[in-house]
Formats: sequence, C-alpha cells, structure tokens
Amino acid sequence: MTPVDPATVPAGSPLSVSAHELAAVRYDSTGLVPAVVQDVADGTVLMVGYMNSEALARTLRTGRSWFWSRSRQEYWCKGETSGDRQWVREVRYDCDGDALLLLVEQQGRGACHTGNRSCFYRSFGQGPVSPG
Amino acid sequence: MTPVDPATVPAGSPLSVSAHELAAVRYDSTGLVPAVVQDVADGTVLMVGYMNSEALARTLRTGRSWFWSRSRQEYWCKGETSGDRQWVREVRYDCDGDALLLLVEQQGRGACHTGNRSCFYRSFGQGPVSPG
Repeated sequence: MTPVDPATVPAGSPLSVSAHELAAVRYDSTGLVPAVVQDVADGTVLMVGYMNSEALARTLRTGRSWFWSRSRQEYWCKGETSGDRQWVREVRYDCDGDALLLLVEQQGRGACHTGNRSCFYRSFGQGPVSPG
Repeated sequence: MTPVDPATVPAGSPLSVSAHELAAVRYDSTGLVPAVVQDVADGTVLMVGYMNSEALARTLRTGRSWFWSRSRQEYWCKGETSGDRQWVREVRYDCDGDALLLLVEQQGRGACHTGNRSCFYRSFGQGPVSPG
C-alpha cells in the first residue's frame, strides 16, 4: 500500500488541545499509545489502532484519524484508501495517560477492512455478532 | 499492593470459548494483548488493560476481569481491592486478533481508581467530561 500523503487528505475540524494535555500522554517504549475508536453516535467500539506523537498531532490538526502501522511501519489515515473515513469529534485520554479514546463519526461501511462495521465482530463462544 | 490470590476471588459466570478462537488471539512481543472494557449496559468505554494468556484464561474461567499489570509485573483482578468489580458478560476479539473487547457489568463507583466511572474522564480541549 502506498503511504498516504498528508497534504492530499481531506481535513475535518481540528481539535483544540493544550500543551499541558499533550504532555499527559505517555507513550510506551516503542513510542506508541493505543487509541480506541468509538462511534460517537451509538457507542460502538469500532477498532483499536496505535498512535505515535506525530499521528496524534495529525489527528488533532486535521480531525481525521491517523495511526502508525506497526506491521508496515508507516502512517495511515483511516479510510483514505477505502473511503470509510473517520471524522474525529473528540479525543479523550485515560487516568494514566497511556490510552486514548477517539469519538468519531464513521463514514461508509464501517471501520473494519473485512467489511464489518466494527473490527470486534466476533465473540468467544458465539461466533459472529452484530455489535451496535 | 498484595497480589490477589485467584482462589479467594468470587467467581461470576464462566464464558465458553473454543481452542480455535483462543488460537486467534495474537499477543505482542511481550506476551500481552490490550483489552478494552466496555459497560454492557450503556456502552461507556471504561478502561483499557492488558492481558497475557493466563489473565485471559482466568477471565474466561471466572467471568471476572483479570489483567497483567505492566508496572507491578503481577496479575490483578479488577475490583478485588476496591470492590468495584467487573462481571464479564462477553469477550470479543478483533479482525487481527490483537485486541480484545470485554463487555462487563460494572459494579460499584466505576472502573477508575480516581473515583471516576470511566478512566477516560478527560477530553483534550475540554477538561473533565461526564462520559455516558
């Protein structure tokens, strides 16, 4: 997959953040923090991705969800190849600052590359589910 | 904090799982997988913890949420010191098998040691929020 050029990505609404808030984020030894993505409309947990400080900065600046791909070792912007974009409305951070929660408007089919709306479409002992 | 003795932890309802499903879980290089904990009643994302295979096995066997503490390097069962227990109703796994989603009934004040219901009680640019 070709890395996405940030300059060509349609931007949403930027999110405000203070230096104090940004300093509260604690990245792990590989420079990453997990980001849980939740549908702002109905609360569905859509996916978990990883951000480094640059991915978080791009996310806040553009209102689009940017992640760091551990497998491909590159930045990716959710939906820029599939069209299933996420428009970020709010970013929360947890008590320890070592996890983020993005509240998004999910465009298109959903967040999962399998075509499911949520990446969490399977449940132990129950098989496929319809999260909602 | 004294490690919790699994034998003394009140059990909930065990969750069924197949060997095939368990084999789909992909642990990272440190043997951990992130587990997002969501309130089954209203969809609030309560917290993110980390599980190794033994923590996941305990969780499924007992219906209580067990995690591996990276800072303390020990197992912990949510709520066994605070009383704010989580009764696990369902465990989902994502498309890549490298993240888990626990749907729980949250007992007591909530999931966060700060006294907030959710660990994600702060929002960039907005300060404290009341997630729900």
